[in-house]
Amino acid sequence: MLHRRAAQLQKHASHNKLEEKDVEKFASILSTPETSLLTTLKTSKGPKPVDASELDLFNNDWMNKYHGQSVCVLKPKTTQEVSEIMKYCFERKLAVVPQGGNTGLVGGGVPVLDEVIINLGAMNKIRSFNEISGTLVCDAGCILESLDNHIAEKGYMMPLDLGAKGSCQIGGNVATNAGGLRFLRYGSLHGNVLGLEVVLPNGTVLDGLSTLRKDNTGFDLKQLFIGSEGTIGLITGVSIITPRRPSAFNVAVFAVDSFEAVQNVFSKVKAHCGEILSAFEFFDNQSLEMVKAHATAGVKDPFQDKHPFYVLIETSGSKKEHDDEKVNELLEELMESSAIVDGVLAQDETQVQSLWALRESIPEAAGKLGSTYKYDVSMPVELMNELVEDMRSRLDKHGLMGNKVKEVVGYGHIGDGNLHINIIADKFDPAVEEVIEPYIYEWLAKVNGSISAEHGLGRMKGEKIGYSKSPASVAIMKDIKHLFDPENLLNPYKYLPSDK
Amino acid sequence: MLHRRAAQLQKHASHNKLEEKDVEKFASILSTPETSLLTTLKTSKGPKPVDASELDLFNNDWMNKYHGQSVCVLKPKTTQEVSEIMKYCFERKLAVVPQGGNTGLVGGGVPVLDEVIINLGAMNKIRSFNEISGTLVCDAGCILESLDNHIAEKGYMMPLDLGAKGSCQIGGNVATNAGGLRFLRYGSLHGNVLGLEVVLPNGTVLDGLSTLRKDNTGFDLKQLFIGSEGTIGLITGVSIITPRRPSAFNVAVFAVDSFEAVQNVFSKVKAHCGEILSAFEFFDNQSLEMVKAHATAGVKDPFQDKHPFYVLIETSGSKKEHDDEKVNELLEELMESSAIVDGVLAQDETQVQSLWALRESIPEAAGKLGSTYKYDVSMPVELMNELVEDMRSRLDKHGLMGNKVKEVVGYGHIGDGNLHINIIADKFDPAVEEVIEPYIYEWLAKVNGSISAEHGLGRMKGEKIGYSKSPASVAIMKDIKHLFDPENLLNPYKYLPSDK
Repeated sequence: MLHRRAAQLQKHASHNKLEEKDVEKFASILSTPETSLLTTLKTSKGPKPVDASELDLFNNDWMNKYHGQSVCVLKPKTTQEVSEIMKYCFERKLAVVPQGGNTGLVGGGVPVLDEVIINLGAMNKIRSFNEISGTLVCDAGCILESLDNHIAEKGYMMPLDLGAKGSCQIGGNVATNAGGLRFLRYGSLHGNVLGLEVVLPNGTVLDGLSTLRKDNTGFDLKQLFIGSEGTIGLITGVSIITPRRPSAFNVAVFAVDSFEAVQNVFSKVKAHCGEILSAFEFFDNQSLEMVKAHATAGVKDPFQDKHPFYVLIETSGSKKEHDDEKVNELLEELMESSAIVDGVLAQDETQVQSLWALRESIPEAAGKLGSTYKYDVSMPVELMNELVEDMRSRLDKHGLMGNKVKEVVGYGHIGDGNLHINIIADKFDPAVEEVIEPYIYEWLAKVNGSISAEHGLGRMKGEKIGYSKSPASVAIMKDIKHLFDPENLLNPYKYLPSDK
Repeated sequence: MLHRRAAQLQKHASHNKLEEKDVEKFASILSTPETSLLTTLKTSKGPKPVDASELDLFNNDWMNKYHGQSVCVLKPKTTQEVSEIMKYCFERKLAVVPQGGNTGLVGGGVPVLDEVIINLGAMNKIRSFNEISGTLVCDAGCILESLDNHIAEKGYMMPLDLGAKGSCQIGGNVATNAGGLRFLRYGSLHGNVLGLEVVLPNGTVLDGLSTLRKDNTGFDLKQLFIGSEGTIGLITGVSIITPRRPSAFNVAVFAVDSFEAVQNVFSKVKAHCGEILSAFEFFDNQSLEMVKAHATAGVKDPFQDKHPFYVLIETSGSKKEHDDEKVNELLEELMESSAIVDGVLAQDETQVQSLWALRESIPEAAGKLGSTYKYDVSMPVELMNELVEDMRSRLDKHGLMGNKVKEVVGYGHIGDGNLHINIIADKFDPAVEEVIEPYIYEWLAKVNGSISAEHGLGRMKGEKIGYSKSPASVAIMKDIKHLFDPENLLNPYKYLPSDK
């Protein structure tokens, strides 16, 4: 269990403990310390201390799985403030955890011990948007959904979308290389981010907020920060290219009788829908039954019968008649060739929402059913269901299925080879966890899969990176970490294996 | 002039000169030394020496602008051979230049002094292609066009295309982060490359040939090698995602009366063609006149009158009728709103080729007209023509236009903010160069442009990086170079400023 590990952790010997004078220094850096500085420490010159419970929101992740013990939260409003804070922490050897919307799933955004929390939520201004090129430049603390709404008025759309869009911040999205629902069509942040403004561990501001689509002058440093999970720099600003907002959408859900059929449908859909395909998701029967039983009202099974697997496709394009024609031709072909058993095409916006709800309610339903072990993994598409089946029979053999384990569901982004496997237990229990781990990681290593497709490593999987990356790669990563952060002050005890 | 600089260069004091025993060692590593090792050195156990002229092809770039003095070319056939060669060179402190198709424009792929040339051309096997996911894994020495042809049979397409496709190699494309003609639609190699196999300067093989679309486990190291121009590792294998090959193409050329009109058309085209737009190129009247006068036969002006600017658009999609309808609606709107003065739409494949020839023949025509100073730059789109005009009047003021300078032409990829400005002189002449440089670099620095949009830095612009990147960024780049290549053995004297 991860909290056991945390309990054993020793604070880095070279790191200092936060003192009264440090809080006073922070208060002098922040323009509005009364609202930008939360601490339980009593100081003579700083703001008045708060109750420890007021820090809970920042010390604990939203799943309440990872728990830190920070006594100080800072909410700077400018890059300059972040830079001065970092410079001071660097000199004083105070460890820091950067925090965005705190919507992560691997504990990357909360402290492990008593790290100072730098929460970016107060840096939430849009700096510029170019309506000809679609280039957006904004503060790291902007909420993803707010950005999407802002540029929607101008006919553009954020190239990423995820369940947490209402709370997650673009800086956190970039720091964790978030994937999500538009990945299939618009690709990864490594391709979409044009530039970053980053405060390095020593306080230096790396101003790389370029809006150029092409710039081949030297190593593309921003790429290192994308997915670095706050371990080598603190992202304060983001420049990103945004695509035109499609005006036409279609959503359909198909029922199929095998996982082979899911793949077959994927091939046919790619061929028919070509450039307008924007999502290809799947979920198994267990997922749908769980959603029907436990999700909030409004989720209805569109089919009369039960089927082993379901596929959701979305198309988005610039001309409704054309897209409708393509989708209808696809449907005809799928029915005629018996590639699908049943299918339903949304006729209006309400139906679009309710079909998407089938897929999007799965995590919520799992949360209501019990304590969920979530694994976000990738592998060759054809193996995705095999892992789910293997896990079910393994838990069964160990006498856990229907006992401590209530359900195992598989769903995810077929187009990206990204499976979400959720194992829902009565409660988090070492007896369950030891049957799952390291088995699942070993399984993935054998098929050259990834133990973290889009959620990242954080506190959950930092020590497990060896299942997906070679010792030579991990050694270079450690060198890079050391190059940027020789004192290991930024987001320590995460992401990479400890040296011992 | 760059060759003057090269003449002054001193070999790094710590690097050794190639000796007989080194060639013999290379011969022992290579499986077929008689064809894989070319040297002018006489050895007792190595292959028989060749005439110096046989190395010309490898020592000089294709424009014959950059000249090296290597006495040894190696053409390994396997990653293992590359690894053993690098390991030996590392121990013996022998400098190395990795070489692909030698089609670069900045001298990055040829030696500066006597570096050993490792040419990847003999590593040209396709390792795998997955027809469901479109994932291609291949040796670095595969020719781009051959790859495109290979996967075309399976309904896929390489996500990049450039003029040099018949000779350039995918490893070189990745090492230089090549852009090209499909960039607007399919984005950069930072988004499309899934994995790399790289031999590090000390011979370690970094096996990152993942075929996973999503993998968030640690720093994305492959990103550092994309665009590193062979300075920190030698790419031996590439895994890349390829899009479905569109079945329908449309190409149109429009004549417009101002550069503002070019931008206006760009907005309208993006709105009308949405997801099917695959190229938006422009060229000025000077470019077209030059092409008509100097390009190979077959290039015909499709318009009766002369116009200040021309725009070429290409669409590609999965359904011809739909694309045709979108393009026709666009044409109607452009004519009715007087956004364009004239326009022509290709009616068949021959016309598609001849319209593309107008744009693609520009570099060739410039080469026939004289010696070309080529600058490949990026900046906010609205400034692109201003730079061209400024350059013309500056050369005019210095009494060079129509004298030592024959023509200044501007063309490029509007969609990417990428301008190619070519200054065609009688001959390469310091009197011309000093009027252009550093003026053009200072101009770009002032508008936060890039001094190299897609060609890279190589030997031409390594010392100039400061015009586009901050001292803090350059310092980190030097640290990264040192981390991977502490002895500076890999592609020395290029890419980054020398320390003095």
